[in-house]
Amino acid sequence: MQNSIKKIAITGGTHGNELTGVYLINKFTTNPKIIHRDSFKTISMHTNLGAMKQCTRYVDKDLNRTFSKAALADDTLTSYEDKLAKEINQKIGPKGSKDSNIDFIMDLHTTTSSMGLSICISSTDKLTWQAAAYAKDKLPELNIFRWQGDTDDAAFVSSIPPRGFTIEVGPIPQGVLRADVFIGTENIVHTVLDFFELHNTGKLDKHYDSVEIYDYKKLVDFPRNESGDIVAMIHPDLQDDGYKKIDKGDPLFMTLDGESVNYQDEDTAHALFVNEAAYYEKGFAMCLTEKKLISLEF
Amino acid sequence: MQNSIKKIAITGGTHGNELTGVYLINKFTTNPKIIHRDSFKTISMHTNLGAMKQCTRYVDKDLNRTFSKAALADDTLTSYEDKLAKEINQKIGPKGSKDSNIDFIMDLHTTTSSMGLSICISSTDKLTWQAAAYAKDKLPELNIFRWQGDTDDAAFVSSIPPRGFTIEVGPIPQGVLRADVFIGTENIVHTVLDFFELHNTGKLDKHYDSVEIYDYKKLVDFPRNESGDIVAMIHPDLQDDGYKKIDKGDPLFMTLDGESVNYQDEDTAHALFVNEAAYYEKGFAMCLTEKKLISLEF
Repeated sequence: MQNSIKKIAITGGTHGNELTGVYLINKFTTNPKIIHRDSFKTISMHTNLGAMKQCTRYVDKDLNRTFSKAALADDTLTSYEDKLAKEINQKIGPKGSKDSNIDFIMDLHTTTSSMGLSICISSTDKLTWQAAAYAKDKLPELNIFRWQGDTDDAAFVSSIPPRGFTIEVGPIPQGVLRADVFIGTENIVHTVLDFFELHNTGKLDKHYDSVEIYDYKKLVDFPRNESGDIVAMIHPDLQDDGYKKIDKGDPLFMTLDGESVNYQDEDTAHALFVNEAAYYEKGFAMCLTEKKLISLEF
Repeated sequence: MQNSIKKIAITGGTHGNELTGVYLINKFTTNPKIIHRDSFKTISMHTNLGAMKQCTRYVDKDLNRTFSKAALADDTLTSYEDKLAKEINQKIGPKGSKDSNIDFIMDLHTTTSSMGLSICISSTDKLTWQAAAYAKDKLPELNIFRWQGDTDDAAFVSSIPPRGFTIEVGPIPQGVLRADVFIGTENIVHTVLDFFELHNTGKLDKHYDSVEIYDYKKLVDFPRNESGDIVAMIHPDLQDDGYKKIDKGDPLFMTLDGESVNYQDEDTAHALFVNEAAYYEKGFAMCLTEKKLISLEF
């Protein structure tokens, strides 16, 4: 069949302190039957053993921002993650090749933000979007976030094979396992594997014309003083309410002294990745998005 | 007045990724009036700037296990935290001295565990227990955990002055600020400062004969395989229910395959520090305690 998928990779531990992916890969490698489907081969692998060993996000730099074509071609980049990226690219790429070793990838992540079950897609590949739309159809609580900020040369692990996306589930602290997050993430994995089994065997009973997404608009940093120190926290109204609709005047932050800091823009937004621990150092407190229905007939 | 308290220290950042304490100290040092009381002097300080800078629990070792008298006297211990401990001991100690620079300390911590507002006490000092009992009287949701595992030579920051305790609030991920946890922790601080103001000025209208506590029984590790890898997670029934009562047969863990692992002991326990991220490397999943009323007439 046209576009049949022959080999899928499930990866975890890209961020070594996001234990859900680490332990799901342990589960899948211990008992590969769980992720077996008849019409394609599935491999599961840890991507960043160094970061996993020390239970940190990374050793030298964020592995999930290290897969631009330029970085992969640059032999002068010799950090732990830069070298690792080149190894991973050989295993599940090479990136940009029509003869990639892997046809589709799911990279398993978690977040301290109240994101529920989420898929983050940078790809413009039609089949990838059909897989995401199928997953949302089967798991209605699933949210799809489109991030095309660096589509031309996406630097994520999930950008290596021609198709794929990142799974993000939360809230969960770094360095912690939670049964609900573990089970929820595994459910997404199985649903997507089922999609490709149906696709490969011509048994898909539905084509998705459109899907609801949260489309990237901009990043918002914490209020800071002149020294760069954070002087306000995420407002309690926003803290535990993932994908919350934000209108002008709604509170975004609360200063350490208890004053509200409100949203000033005219356009409605939905807030994602609110209070993700790893983004404090990157300089943002949340990502604002536009909720929309997009056509999949592109 | 007998036993009057002249100088109190509030410390935060002992674990550099527990941001609530870090930012409360920022707030107090920016505006010391907040923690001013007329009858004593209060200082606020960060204890582990190195760990704070890299947003990790510690640089070389856990600072909050580095204050045994033996370690403080051992000049051959030269790790970052061992050297730091000696500096801190000079500032707010010296430990064991009747002429300590500080009379009472509150060291501010957080946990990924669902512990609510908690005070952890190792001290056997009467006035320290009166302060805790007062705080529980004013803040009924507060819980008191007694840890006397290393009372003879407690190694916590809070063991340096003759009186003091650790404040633990959660759940909150490492590396994250939450307004509710921030406000809750500050409420405990103010309540305890108020206690000492009333104590010093002879205006305390109540003496506490007894208080309800959770008394340390034992630590329980995660189920592990022969390689030492964790093979089960905290059971969902226990995950978000701090101080939960556990009887024989109640589920403690869920294996990665979904099987329950149950509590086998005959005696009832209450589970604390369930799923604290920092304790994965220490080898325990929870602390079991006995809920009891203890006399304060010792």
